[in-house]
Amino acid sequence: MCSPEVARVVRERIEREGRPQVSRRNFLKLGGLTAAGLAVASVGLPPRRAAAQGMAEVVDLSHIFSVNPPTYTPGQVPTRKDQVTVAANGFYIQEWTFPEHTGTHMDIPAHFIADGETVDNYPAAALVSPVIVVDISKKAETDDDAMLEVADLEAWEAANGEIPAGAVVAMYSGWESRWAEPDTFRNADADGVQHYPGFSGEAAKFLVEERDIHGIAVDTLSLDIGASATFDVHYTILGAGKYGLENIANLGTLIGKPATMVVGVPRWEKGSGGPCRVLAMV
Amino acid sequence: MCSPEVARVVRERIEREGRPQVSRRNFLKLGGLTAAGLAVASVGLPPRRAAAQGMAEVVDLSHIFSVNPPTYTPGQVPTRKDQVTVAANGFYIQEWTFPEHTGTHMDIPAHFIADGETVDNYPAAALVSPVIVVDISKKAETDDDAMLEVADLEAWEAANGEIPAGAVVAMYSGWESRWAEPDTFRNADADGVQHYPGFSGEAAKFLVEERDIHGIAVDTLSLDIGASATFDVHYTILGAGKYGLENIANLGTLIGKPATMVVGVPRWEKGSGGPCRVLAMV
Repeated sequence: MCSPEVARVVRERIEREGRPQVSRRNFLKLGGLTAAGLAVASVGLPPRRAAAQGMAEVVDLSHIFSVNPPTYTPGQVPTRKDQVTVAANGFYIQEWTFPEHTGTHMDIPAHFIADGETVDNYPAAALVSPVIVVDISKKAETDDDAMLEVADLEAWEAANGEIPAGAVVAMYSGWESRWAEPDTFRNADADGVQHYPGFSGEAAKFLVEERDIHGIAVDTLSLDIGASATFDVHYTILGAGKYGLENIANLGTLIGKPATMVVGVPRWEKGSGGPCRVLAMV
Repeated sequence: MCSPEVARVVRERIEREGRPQVSRRNFLKLGGLTAAGLAVASVGLPPRRAAAQGMAEVVDLSHIFSVNPPTYTPGQVPTRKDQVTVAANGFYIQEWTFPEHTGTHMDIPAHFIADGETVDNYPAAALVSPVIVVDISKKAETDDDAMLEVADLEAWEAANGEIPAGAVVAMYSGWESRWAEPDTFRNADADGVQHYPGFSGEAAKFLVEERDIHGIAVDTLSLDIGASATFDVHYTILGAGKYGLENIANLGTLIGKPATMVVGVPRWEKGSGGPCRVLAMV
């Protein structure tokens, strides 16, 4: 909405009635939240609502889509600018420009596979999944090249039972604590090789061949470890028609908890994946 | 991923091993879908998965985010271009540019309200809601300026009970049948005034003052009717700290069915709302 006619109407209304303000009281009715609570990632539904929906909690697994995130390739950051503002035009809209693989985002087969499925018509049913979190944070503390291996999946299954059909298998390495420092998150050495955890090629192969998954997720910049030169995990997961999720947040809060993940990826036309909102319902 | 080094590695791998192809057999394991089924909006989870998740069906309420959608202001369309391609670089990424209020998208308080909440830190719990669909398609057939009135809400409640706390109240006018023809969807008259259904200001006021909602949704370009010159519904809903969803698809399939709506809106930094994926679980 930014035609001159609309701007005139909005300006006249503001002159006539003053600018409306959000009622803090009404806003807080949204979720029984305090102002401080708005900034936390995991927010609870109030009891009445939770009971009505048969769920207890919504956990936000997404980082803010900002103009200075860590990126796989240096400098590939989004830009945004005001198109119109409440002060000047009576209402506010930003314009964005970005490459699809930025921030918390999805990799879909077309990202690596010729004639692979694009995100616009990827089946919606695959976006709702049980999510299981495999915790490799202990080995990642001492090894920046730590991999989620088949042995980690076997250990998870020994404790929890077989990975459920249609699951998203998520790697929690603890790497998100570096998110606010892009260079530390990317962690390139003197030769420009990045170092951060990811899945091993064998683990990806196990999940595609021996289990029935929707996709995998990582709290780092890539499904493969940063030092990978061959992208085995990308080829295996995307080559099997599955998807990957990168730069996921707050997975630590889901360890050991049954949860349903919803991948809110807009239907980017012919998209190779793209920015998305990832939520878990616990 | 598009550094020269990565492109080189991918090219070498392709030369060595050939391009991997998506296995159609594996892809179909995603949801038990036929190739034709990928294009339909409402896709069923296979029985085993549905049972595990306690839900029967995922309904996609989102249009494809394309470069030629209907727009409130003519010409405000997104653009996309290939940044890298599988053929030339070994992998595929598009770059997008668009204003936030495009396609299936969210309006958040900051869109109209000075110092209103932006979408990046809007509470995640408000993105998961019972959704109720109020069907005004019959009057919209003969009146392009039809409004969802308080009487329509009262009729819905007489049949279904009080609107549940934390609901999203959605207007189904049937207007989405015009989506593929942007001029017909926008439906401007000789004076440039648009004509399509929306909420009445009184209905918005009723929902904000007498009920406890998360937001409202429409299958048209605006929460207000197209002919509105005062944006009463925008001011009432956003001024109360609630949100609006515009250009929603497939609401007709939810009439009379209890469903949970998930609004997958990326956390656009300082966003006035923005493109999102809206899914319903029935």
